[in-house]
Amino acid sequence: MSAEFMRRAIALAIENVQSGRGGPFACVVTKDGQILAEGANHVTTTNDPTAHAEIVAIRNACSALGKFQLDGCELYTTCEPCPMCLGAIYWARPAKVYFASTASDAAKAGFDDAFIYDELKNDPISRRIPMTQLLRNEALAVFSTWESQADKTPY
Amino acid sequence: MSAEFMRRAIALAIENVQSGRGGPFACVVTKDGQILAEGANHVTTTNDPTAHAEIVAIRNACSALGKFQLDGCELYTTCEPCPMCLGAIYWARPAKVYFASTASDAAKAGFDDAFIYDELKNDPISRRIPMTQLLRNEALAVFSTWESQADKTPY
Repeated sequence: MSAEFMRRAIALAIENVQSGRGGPFACVVTKDGQILAEGANHVTTTNDPTAHAEIVAIRNACSALGKFQLDGCELYTTCEPCPMCLGAIYWARPAKVYFASTASDAAKAGFDDAFIYDELKNDPISRRIPMTQLLRNEALAVFSTWESQADKTPY
Repeated sequence: MSAEFMRRAIALAIENVQSGRGGPFACVVTKDGQILAEGANHVTTTNDPTAHAEIVAIRNACSALGKFQLDGCELYTTCEPCPMCLGAIYWARPAKVYFASTASDAAKAGFDDAFIYDELKNDPISRRIPMTQLLRNEALAVFSTWESQADKTPY
């Protein structure tokens, strides 16, 4: 079944480019052998830098399930996920991920995630976007509020 | 000015927990010394695993600007960003990031991003969520469509 779902994702990505709705990426989420949700890159048309195909598809799939986890789902994405999308995949926890083209194929087309992967390995202070710590002691009150909160939904 | 904005983010995070709207995290985006947008973690109440404070704030800030980039903006987040949010920050490209508590403070409160940071370092095939390549040759048509598309918005 898996080739069929990837072909659907590839067709969606091509259609996304041709219609001018966004970048050359799409993603399909399946459950029990059926398509549960789809998504394509809509960064430029929705002014949302987080609207990568995988993020859009994960949000749609969770909305369809009414849950914030994708237990037992499979994700078909036309390209190896960027660090943001890989992080989102771990938070959503589908059972399996299939990807078609590689990060290096994407880089040749002008989408270079390697820079972000490299930055993640650096200490906050030595990153290209400077990251500075501030008011840690005051912020610890947030976690103590969380710990003492009776009614809460952990995740 | 920066302490004032971080205190606002801390207050938002505490209010987010006490109101039961989500996890103990919030984020403020500023531009020209003023608050442009805010966001708090709404994962469990919106069934959206990507609704971390930074993602919500970045989406709100881009929406306020009508752009998919946060040029010249500063981001104040109550906790060191997880890999998903760090990726989103690089795509949004604010000028600076301030964070208060550390990933290890968050881990003590039950939010362990270290697992995801470790997984990112592994090859796709050896990750805890199996990632398998499929139909690369067919997917290359997506990038050739992109390359030959006349009207497109690169990012």
